[in-house]
Amino acid sequence: MGNSEEDWLTINTIRTLAVDATFHANSGHPGAPMGMAPAAHILFTRFMSFNPKNPHWVNRDRFVLSNGHACMLQYALLHLFGYNLSMADLRNFRQLHSITPGHPESHATPGIEVTTGPLGQGFANAVGLAIAQAHLASVFNKPGYNLINNRTFCFFGDGCAMEGIASEAASLAGHLRLGNLVCLYDDNKISIDGDIKCTFTEDVQKRFESYGWHVEVVPDGDTNLDAIEAAIQKCLNVTDKPSVVKVATTIGFGSKLQGTAGVHGNPLTKDDVEQVKKLFGFDPAQTFMVPQQVYDLYHQHADEGMAQEQEWTETLARYAEAYPAEHAELTRRMEGKLADGWENGLPLYTIKDAAIASRKLSETVLEKIHKLVPELLSGSADLTSSNNTRWKDAVDFQPPEYGIGDWSGRYLRYGVREHAMAAIMNGLAAYGLIIPLGGGFLNFASYAAGAIRLAALSRLRVIHIATHDSIALGQDGPTHQPIEVLAHFRALPNCMVWRPADGNETSAAYLAALGSKETPSILALTRQNLPQLPGSSIQNALKGGYVVLENPQAVITLVSTGSEVSVCLQAAAELSKQNLPARVVSIPCFEAFDSQEESYRLQVLPDGVPILSVEAASTMGWDRYAHQQFGINRFGASGPCDELFQMFELTPEGIARRAVATVSFYEGAAVLSPIRRAFAQIL
Amino acid sequence: MGNSEEDWLTINTIRTLAVDATFHANSGHPGAPMGMAPAAHILFTRFMSFNPKNPHWVNRDRFVLSNGHACMLQYALLHLFGYNLSMADLRNFRQLHSITPGHPESHATPGIEVTTGPLGQGFANAVGLAIAQAHLASVFNKPGYNLINNRTFCFFGDGCAMEGIASEAASLAGHLRLGNLVCLYDDNKISIDGDIKCTFTEDVQKRFESYGWHVEVVPDGDTNLDAIEAAIQKCLNVTDKPSVVKVATTIGFGSKLQGTAGVHGNPLTKDDVEQVKKLFGFDPAQTFMVPQQVYDLYHQHADEGMAQEQEWTETLARYAEAYPAEHAELTRRMEGKLADGWENGLPLYTIKDAAIASRKLSETVLEKIHKLVPELLSGSADLTSSNNTRWKDAVDFQPPEYGIGDWSGRYLRYGVREHAMAAIMNGLAAYGLIIPLGGGFLNFASYAAGAIRLAALSRLRVIHIATHDSIALGQDGPTHQPIEVLAHFRALPNCMVWRPADGNETSAAYLAALGSKETPSILALTRQNLPQLPGSSIQNALKGGYVVLENPQAVITLVSTGSEVSVCLQAAAELSKQNLPARVVSIPCFEAFDSQEESYRLQVLPDGVPILSVEAASTMGWDRYAHQQFGINRFGASGPCDELFQMFELTPEGIARRAVATVSFYEGAAVLSPIRRAFAQIL
Repeated sequence: MGNSEEDWLTINTIRTLAVDATFHANSGHPGAPMGMAPAAHILFTRFMSFNPKNPHWVNRDRFVLSNGHACMLQYALLHLFGYNLSMADLRNFRQLHSITPGHPESHATPGIEVTTGPLGQGFANAVGLAIAQAHLASVFNKPGYNLINNRTFCFFGDGCAMEGIASEAASLAGHLRLGNLVCLYDDNKISIDGDIKCTFTEDVQKRFESYGWHVEVVPDGDTNLDAIEAAIQKCLNVTDKPSVVKVATTIGFGSKLQGTAGVHGNPLTKDDVEQVKKLFGFDPAQTFMVPQQVYDLYHQHADEGMAQEQEWTETLARYAEAYPAEHAELTRRMEGKLADGWENGLPLYTIKDAAIASRKLSETVLEKIHKLVPELLSGSADLTSSNNTRWKDAVDFQPPEYGIGDWSGRYLRYGVREHAMAAIMNGLAAYGLIIPLGGGFLNFASYAAGAIRLAALSRLRVIHIATHDSIALGQDGPTHQPIEVLAHFRALPNCMVWRPADGNETSAAYLAALGSKETPSILALTRQNLPQLPGSSIQNALKGGYVVLENPQAVITLVSTGSEVSVCLQAAAELSKQNLPARVVSIPCFEAFDSQEESYRLQVLPDGVPILSVEAASTMGWDRYAHQQFGINRFGASGPCDELFQMFELTPEGIARRAVATVSFYEGAAVLSPIRRAFAQIL
Repeated sequence: MGNSEEDWLTINTIRTLAVDATFHANSGHPGAPMGMAPAAHILFTRFMSFNPKNPHWVNRDRFVLSNGHACMLQYALLHLFGYNLSMADLRNFRQLHSITPGHPESHATPGIEVTTGPLGQGFANAVGLAIAQAHLASVFNKPGYNLINNRTFCFFGDGCAMEGIASEAASLAGHLRLGNLVCLYDDNKISIDGDIKCTFTEDVQKRFESYGWHVEVVPDGDTNLDAIEAAIQKCLNVTDKPSVVKVATTIGFGSKLQGTAGVHGNPLTKDDVEQVKKLFGFDPAQTFMVPQQVYDLYHQHADEGMAQEQEWTETLARYAEAYPAEHAELTRRMEGKLADGWENGLPLYTIKDAAIASRKLSETVLEKIHKLVPELLSGSADLTSSNNTRWKDAVDFQPPEYGIGDWSGRYLRYGVREHAMAAIMNGLAAYGLIIPLGGGFLNFASYAAGAIRLAALSRLRVIHIATHDSIALGQDGPTHQPIEVLAHFRALPNCMVWRPADGNETSAAYLAALGSKETPSILALTRQNLPQLPGSSIQNALKGGYVVLENPQAVITLVSTGSEVSVCLQAAAELSKQNLPARVVSIPCFEAFDSQEESYRLQVLPDGVPILSVEAASTMGWDRYAHQQFGINRFGASGPCDELFQMFELTPEGIARRAVATVSFYEGAAVLSPIRRAFAQIL
């Protein structure tokens, strides 16, 4: 405790860096950095342990800027502490190919833990990071070896506080009693529409208390560094609850427009920039000014962090001797490797095996591999018995005092909180050492779209088990039957959508998903039983697309996914009776298929034969692989599964009829495979 | 007050109807109807005013079953009160083409106000319904003429309570002090994963208090009808706050599995059905049994409702004389007609007009038409100054005591609550008499996907103003730049996605959106300026697609939307220099274009000329109109707009280069228009 001129010099350096960078870029958000600089300074220098020279140190404290538009605050901190983020990078704020983009991107910038900006996401990510720590501590820590004891800190503003995803995550964090999580709420009372009294007048403190959080209030966050420090310290002393510090700040502190929305998303005027610098005792003629003593102060803290990592590394070395098995496991995970041979645990199927729903096939995979892939942390958004995401002897991740699980548990009951689940999974994956898997209905992946998008953008290995993947879910009706959802996530870059057709394809989907370290996966799985396909194998399916039924005489290729592949095989039999030989292709994953060599793809979808796609969903996107498309471009209906397939003519006869129409349509025409393109995409 | 045997007979009739219907369908959710039957009975008979013979009576009380899986509760009530829902319909529960689908669908069933099932949506719809009443009361009620004074009631369960969308809506409802809204929270402590102590241990009562709600608690909701009635009455006495009654119930009350998840989503066993009937004094041998006195009781209440409507109609007739202008306006809205000639207010543009961002063009439309379309209720999710959704003299919809607006206000500050905004808009539209319009960034329409989907499914006229519609938003970076979003909503059935290219197209988008009484619209609008196109007109654009630049010698057709159309025109100029004449087509709305005659569509996209699509977004879906596609199948980047277009080669030169490749690719081949299809879709 006790603050000095040096503290204020540092705080004002951060503020003026934010002012200069946004002014220089003529774009960006100066207000929040100026308001939160005192809290950030206190948090980072008094409480946080990290090593700028190794941003990947496993036991570093995590910091999440959920109000990501305030990123100049974080970029300034990273620069001052000596992360690999130079003054030139600050000057390049918001420029193309810079490492200082308009919102923080974890894959772009050393020291950024998670990608934020879409409001509420970072808050939920922080909950995931805190869960990861609690879980891993329980798995790996031993008496005298507190290897995983970092804390998670998060800043969030009024925008995040209004977002439902943050409410969901806060409720779950309170339930889970995450004592390692401390959030600072930037209570500046301003959002883009102006004073929040026009829309946000709830009692945020009371709301967090209702979730079971510990709450501290700092009424003078602009000026009272001791109060900020004391409040954070009190939160850290509360170890059985997550904490929030409500810090009253002034947005754009020091600007002529301070305390207004005018300083939120626009650079200060030239006059105001000069005025602010004078106010803070800086030379208005100088830009991007950092006094040496600020660097010294921050580098000293960075050195302490380096020493802490050094000490940690020594502990790890001793741990290697005392707990060789745990050490081997921990270091394997730190290296980002899966256990050798884990994939041998994946179940294989032949056509003699019974027809099984792919959600059940997925459950079998989990039964077989959960011991081989101990980093897998499963869960569901309150649909455990529908998603089949829980292996038999799974332990719930719960505070032990509830008597229904413990911190080592690998099954997380997310509650009916799809969006927070997806964002918490992102936090778990961002921590490292954990591969999160979460279940829901495919249709409600739409609730989680914001978070799944960020998994794709920030390159996180998360696995969504999305069951009840078509109208075949039946009687729950069109409110629950996905139509547009596959197209939506197939259009999302860097997201693998798997829709396996049988057991081997399901195993392949897991193999691909677990092996894709920089890509989220969605496994769209059925409620209804699926027969095992004749031509399927893990190796075939891994290619994303392959020939299930070859026929050199074929006059048509049927291409399909999931539950419709076996119906296409029946349609092919039907067609052969009409002397129209057909090929059948399964494309369980567009992304995986697209990454194959063109020659292979042309082998699967060759020239000369018209291609008809069949899928119980929107036809959008299928033109990429098929000349004609058969699907469902309207909403479904409530009724028994079989009757629905009849209604939508997704029967062998209905498919055959359209195949006949397709053959006749292309009669005599030269048919070019849609795989052939006139030009390459920009990637 | 004071309850009788008749009350319990009725309650148990409802319970056994739910038991029989789910048993008969071998599918569905008996538990919640059995638990909530007492509360439903009290609410409907003691408090609600409605006329089963006219479910559209404007001033009826609204009831929303947010936990829509409990729909057998509501179907039973509708049947007993004499809505057009027969015993045969109850026996057809969850069957194809029935009016008793697995979750309530407002367009399918008389008496269902909104489509629910996706959790949390109904709660937010109810907030919208309550806002509608408060607004319309302020607009139309006069001393002695309380024409609009209905209340909104909503049931919700633990699932809804966990969903973020409900938190967002509750926070806004508390801010808005919606005294006309009373929600009953089915506090049964069970969700699909079992006892909610595994995931949901927050203090719900305290949370609602933190939002500014009045809270009542009924600890014995299974047995104490007087307590339920007294609690609801107290809530109705609180007129300056929304209210929630926390009613402790037992899920599946009476079943052998009561109080467990086993009775949530599965019919009771045969034994249990018999046991329950005996317990309630019913004959186990009889199914779908309704004692005549139950019908009598409910029909009597229905008659009272009919009389109330009659009285209301008489008041309306007197209103016609006292307030002829207001009466004309109200009845016009009740008939669902827009004011004659309103469309003449839409601005028209010529190529001499300046380049303007389509978000600004949209603002101009609102300035011009807001007086002509007084049912338009605008708003934004805290992006008013970015979405340009507020006309200059707009009044905010606010409780008058805040001094920043009043109930008559037509501008709603939704806060940073995209999902709740979309669902509240659905509620506003479902009320009738209002056309809601709400602003956000296109990328964050993804946050609202769950609610937009329900607007499409339940056929509601809502208008989403989705600005910052591409990478052209620039420096905010890929977290804010939509890629997959257009494809997502284009794949959604019954949703019009407009991406206008200039002023006339923007006017056309409004004309179509306001005129589409059963379809939601998303207007994807730019941040950057767009030149006025030579060939554009409202009439052309209304067709969804039209030729902007015709050329009988064309060797290629460029087809595009929004900001890229004018770049395609420049590319065509570039191509003409290379002796490659090009046509340019604008397709501002796929849905509108698809509904044109094939002959027109073939005129726009004729055979014989290869077609290249150009859009600054995922190419997914463009194969429907183009042989080759140029777009962005990766995430964007943070940088100035112009540099981004250079980077992604969405320049005249970049487009021309791909046009050349496309022409050469199809050299000598017979090119068939993609408009030609081998078979028709099932609609």
